[in-house]
Order: sequence, then C-alpha cells, then structure tokens
Amino acid sequence: MGQSRPADQAGLRRGNLALLVRTLREHGALSRAQLAVRSGLSKATVSSLVTDLETRGLVHDAGISAGGQGRPGQLVDLRPDSVCGVGLDVHVGHMGAFVTDLGGQVLFQRRVVCDVPGMGPERALDQLGELAAEAMAGLKNAVGVTVSVPGLVDTAAGVVTFSPRLRWRDVSVADGLAARTGLGLDRIVVDNDANLGALAELADMDVADLVYLTGDFGIGGGVIAGGRLVRGSIGFAGEIGHMAMDPLGPYCSCGRRGCWETQVGLGALLHACADPDDPIRDPALDLDQRMRMVRARAAQQDRRTLDALHQIGTALGLGVSFLVNLLNPAVVVLGGYFAALPEWLVEPIRNQVVAHVLAPGAGGARVVGSRLGFTAATTGGALASLRRVLEDPTVVPVIQTEEEPEEAPA
Amino acid sequence: MGQSRPADQAGLRRGNLALLVRTLREHGALSRAQLAVRSGLSKATVSSLVTDLETRGLVHDAGISAGGQGRPGQLVDLRPDSVCGVGLDVHVGHMGAFVTDLGGQVLFQRRVVCDVPGMGPERALDQLGELAAEAMAGLKNAVGVTVSVPGLVDTAAGVVTFSPRLRWRDVSVADGLAARTGLGLDRIVVDNDANLGALAELADMDVADLVYLTGDFGIGGGVIAGGRLVRGSIGFAGEIGHMAMDPLGPYCSCGRRGCWETQVGLGALLHACADPDDPIRDPALDLDQRMRMVRARAAQQDRRTLDALHQIGTALGLGVSFLVNLLNPAVVVLGGYFAALPEWLVEPIRNQVVAHVLAPGAGGARVVGSRLGFTAATTGGALASLRRVLEDPTVVPVIQTEEEPEEAPA
Repeated sequence: MGQSRPADQAGLRRGNLALLVRTLREHGALSRAQLAVRSGLSKATVSSLVTDLETRGLVHDAGISAGGQGRPGQLVDLRPDSVCGVGLDVHVGHMGAFVTDLGGQVLFQRRVVCDVPGMGPERALDQLGELAAEAMAGLKNAVGVTVSVPGLVDTAAGVVTFSPRLRWRDVSVADGLAARTGLGLDRIVVDNDANLGALAELADMDVADLVYLTGDFGIGGGVIAGGRLVRGSIGFAGEIGHMAMDPLGPYCSCGRRGCWETQVGLGALLHACADPDDPIRDPALDLDQRMRMVRARAAQQDRRTLDALHQIGTALGLGVSFLVNLLNPAVVVLGGYFAALPEWLVEPIRNQVVAHVLAPGAGGARVVGSRLGFTAATTGGALASLRRVLEDPTVVPVIQTEEEPEEAPA
Repeated sequence: MGQSRPADQAGLRRGNLALLVRTLREHGALSRAQLAVRSGLSKATVSSLVTDLETRGLVHDAGISAGGQGRPGQLVDLRPDSVCGVGLDVHVGHMGAFVTDLGGQVLFQRRVVCDVPGMGPERALDQLGELAAEAMAGLKNAVGVTVSVPGLVDTAAGVVTFSPRLRWRDVSVADGLAARTGLGLDRIVVDNDANLGALAELADMDVADLVYLTGDFGIGGGVIAGGRLVRGSIGFAGEIGHMAMDPLGPYCSCGRRGCWETQVGLGALLHACADPDDPIRDPALDLDQRMRMVRARAAQQDRRTLDALHQIGTALGLGVSFLVNLLNPAVVVLGGYFAALPEWLVEPIRNQVVAHVLAPGAGGARVVGSRLGFTAATTGGALASLRRVLEDPTVVPVIQTEEEPEEAPA
C-alpha cells in the first residue's frame, strides 16, 4: 500500500529548500520572517535554508520591505537569471527550441519548418543538434534539455519506441543528441509532446486535474490527475489518438482502422474543408498560415468551412466525453491546431460532453483553447527542465570561491 | 507546480510511525535493528517510535530473533487484532458487510439479497444500519466504516449524488448511517464501489497502474495511476459505463443511448444468453447461482451461451482498448460478474486490446479476472478503513492507564 520511503534529514532539507524556492516563485520577494509564516518552518530553519540557496546563487537580497504588517526586514528573492531550462521539439513538419529562465523570461525561441519523416532519424538528429547548439550558445546556466516527440517514448532510456507520425522506431534521441552536442546524458530528457504540453498548461492554471489534447495530423493526450502526470506502467499513457472510434473506418498512420485521429486529425479537417488544389492543403505552406486561412473563411461564414469545423468538433466532443466520464477533469485544454479554432470547436465539443457525461453539469469540466498553441511542447520542455531545480535545488552546484570549503553550510 | 506543504517535525514523526507499521505489515516480526536497516531510520529513532506504537497497542513483543545475521534481538510485531476496519456495500440486488483486522483475519462477512432500488433510500438506510450494527456487535477497536455505493459520490459530504442503478439522487448516506448507529461522522466514509474494488485489487498485486472494471447491471471503473486512486476534480472519475460506444444504440438506465453498459452489462449478457422464461433471467434467484448456470452451459459448449460470451467479451475488449491506450495500465482486473467468467471473456478482450492498442504488446497490459469477485467492494471498504491507521497511526489513541500522563512519550 503506497510507497514506503524513509523521510530522512537530508531529504527533509531538500524538500524544504524546494518549498522555499516555490514559495518565492509564487509570491515574489519575501523577508525571512514572511517566508517562515508562509512555509510553516521556523525562522532559524528558514535562515539556514536561505544561506544555502545563496551559496548556490539561486536567491539574492532584494531590498528592505516597506511597512505593512510587522517590522521591516531584508527581502530575499529568486535570482531570475540564475538558471534556465531548454525545451526542444521534434514534430512532423517542424522543429522548435525554447529557452526560459527561472523568472520566466524567454531567452531564445525558434521554429524551423522541415520534413522530419522524410529526413529519417539520423539527419533529423543532426538538425536537432544544430538547433540545440544555437539555442544554448553562450548559456552557462542551463540545468537541462528536454526533447519533445510525438509518440511512445521510453523516458528512462531516452528512446523513441514508436512514432507512426515521424515514422520512427527505436530511435535513441538522448544518445544521439549527447553525441552531437557534448551535453551529458544526465542533463537530457526525452518525453512525449502531449505530456510536456499538459505540464505547460498546468503551470498556467489553478487546477489539479487536467486533460490536454494536442491536434496535428495525429492526436496526442496528456493527463494530469491529482496534480501529477499520468504516465502509465511503462510510460505509454496518453495515446488517445488511437482509440478505435470506428473500427471499420478509414486507415490510420498506425496501420489500424478508424482511430480517433482519422476523424479529428488535421488531415480530416483539411479534407473536409477544401479540394486538393486549395492552398489550405499545400504542405509547403506553414501550418500557422493555413490555419489563418481557415479562420478567415469561417469568419466569413463560408458554409463548407463551418460544416467541416462542426463535423470535427462533434467527433472531437464524443471522444472528449469518454475522457470526462473516465477522468472527471476540471478542464480540457485544446492544443495544437485545435487552439487556432476555439470559436468554432468549443461549442460542439461542449454539446457532446453535456449530452454524454453522467455527472451533472459534466462534473464541472470546462473546455478551453490553449493559449500556447503549437509552442506548448517546447514551453513544457523548458519548464520540465527547470522543474528539476524546483523539486531539488541541490542539483545547482554551490558556487566555488577561493579559500572557502566545498560544502554548503549545514 | 506540485503541492507546497511544509515537512514539519510532527508530520515527519507521523510519516515515520506509518513507515514502521507498513514495514511490519509487509515483512512480519522484526527486531529494532532490522527495522532500522529496512526503514533507513536510526536505531534511536526506531526505538522511540516503537515505544509510541506500543502505547497505542499497535505493536507488541514477539519473542527473540533466532540467529541469522547479526546478534539476536527482541522482536517487535503488529498486534494483528489491535484494530479492525469495516466495509459495507449497498448494491442493486444486495447489501454486504465485511470486517477484517490488521492481520487480515476476517471477523465478519455477510451478504443480504434485497431490492435496493425498490426499497427507496430511507428503508435501505434502515436495513444498512441494522447490518452495520450486526457487523460491529462486540467490536471495540473498529477505526472506521466505509460504505460502497455504485454511482457518483461526494466523498467529502458522504452523499450519493446520483446513482442511476439504485435510482438515488442526493442521498446523505453518512448522515443517515450516523443517525441510525450512533457512529461519529468522522468515522464514516462513503465511496464509489469501483474505487474501493480497485483499492482491494491493488492491495493484492505488485503494480502501481491498474484499471479495475466491475460488471453488474451497470459497469463501474476504478483507476489507479502511479499507486494512487484517480478521483477527478470533484470525485466523479471512473464512470466508464456511460462511455457512448453507440450513440444511436439502446437506452441506458441513465436516460442516454448506447452507453457501454448497455452492451456489456449483466442485462446484455442475460438477454443474449437466454429467453425471458429461463431461470438465468429470474431476478429472484441469487446472482452467484445464475452465474454458475451460465458457466455450466458454457462448459457444455452450449452454442447460444458461447456466442453471447464472445459478443460481450468483444464489446468489452473494444472499450478496454480505449482505457489501455489512454492509461497504459500494468493490469486490467475484471470484477463483478465478469470475474465469474474469465475463461470465456479474457481471450476476446485480449484480442481486441492487441488489435487496437498502439503500444507494442499492448504496453505490457495483462487482463485478469478478479479473485475477489462480488466481495471486492466490501473488502476494499474494510481496507480503506484500516488504511487510515497505515497512513497515520496516531489516529489510534494512546491507551490510558492510571497514574500515567496523557501524552505519548516524545
């Protein structure tokens, strides 16, 4: 029953260091006395912990508190530029990179259009290595790199087990990137794009139960339950794009028939919206641009476009109702291409959810468009990299100065 | 990001008391030195914690360790009869009660056939109160009572929000049982039957990701992810019986059409197996008896019975494949009436899962029949009641002896 782990003093201290870092991140600068109140720790403990964080360069003095309740005190705050996290994204039609620091400042962001399935894994990893080098040029304080990939990922090994959309099987992304960049394997994590997108959305919302859907040619799902990502027994959770909604339906990229993504993927939308020679269906055009064209037609009440969006929204809503019955999320976030079209998709989805969910009022589940859109996976990757520090600040080394001992003060 | 809770000394001590109780539960009698090794705590800490547990009557001396590695030492073990937990079950055609102690000994078990929807909530609560009184007659050490109900439960309020199968809406089960038995509200918990069944199955298996399905006239689901029950944002997770597998299909007890339970519930099986005048369809007969008749016909290769089981297994398998794609469980446990028929249901389910799950080898998911069958919910209820002690042994009061101070030793 449950995990049996001893709560030792070192673990307790790490947990409390992490608690202070998160408290400062949520509230901004605080005095040691205020930190003690907010954290529930004693003032003496807080002082010792703050000194530890100072030796790692994670916090600094931030002036004197001005009045308010209690005596004025020296404020402590996170050094926003003390560490940064890197997110990389390998997708069907593009690669992306995103770098952000503890203060949330964006240090680098780039998206490169390319045909990843056509390149094959080796050339794709070459290009990913170049993008990583560009993103990290001049950075000395990156705590880690997280690579997002659509498909089944063995995160422990850093291997993409199977991605029908990339046409990859058993590709060692972590090893490949380490070899090309010189980064240590302990600083590279590979994860599923929808998992990372879900983490990015979670960071933005005050909920503990969230389902994130990302729409592209395939559909991915990321599930947060009780504040934690649901990974499954070997990390393969979230493959909702392959729910067999119509077992006699059209063929899917996975080789099966009638998977949900054949009904609600980008291919289904584009096919319903336009004839083959329509620029909306031109793969050489950037997806953002094509989505703007779909939006413009829908805004002009183009009947074929509106019908296509209604059809996609309804098929999307039926599958979403399954997820809501099963998981009772507080919110369902529509990412990827869905995020470009919430005005037309949210209503038919909500109608299906209300019609097919047992719980009154759909158990309180809201359906919303993502504010991050196609950048959710790289943003989530950068946050996942930073999260290492938020969970264990001791991964950031003590800054070495001459004449001083190596250990942090106890 | 994550919960921010201070790890204070009192919480640390509670956690370590719980760790020792769980360690003894898993391994049996151990010396203080062995407990220190297994728990990672210091010997001095272990000694102080064991003294605390002794004052609560939870542990006692258990002889001297005989040789092996290290010096012989005084053994400590749980007092198996020190506390017990009570599970009650309100279902469509029966009520049940189950009492077990910390050592796993069954102290009481009873099942009463009755027509709960027909009785209405007040009379049903009267009968539940009588069953509870019978189950707890003479018990002085029950730590709590957990009531299992099929449907949506507001566990915080102890209210059944909506149970289509019982035809209950907003029934205050905790209040009603407290008024009828004199039990304190802090010792009564109301929960969904599939959630409790999932906890019972989890206690029996070495996995962290499990999906439990319970089949009756309705279908319930309990999801364990990463060792924890998935409850959803307001506790309504697991309503898989109402996934709209066929939106134009037959009407369901919830008023919607084509819910999964119309395809795989007990009604669908009985209808496919037998004509209306067949004793298998006689609601006056106990369900166990009717299932034995279905088994006997299947074992005799009765064509209609085999076809019916294949049809149910296939429809069950399609829905299970959705759950496996989404959740990547290590095991799917078939409970309720499914548990009476694994020889005929498991194979068609596995075939569907392998056919429709993206992950190679279905992501390692096994499909097995429950060993608990219809008793899973009461067993899970009793275990959930006991779990309070395993999570926080300080809920068990210090035994008062004359002349001694009230506080436990520090």
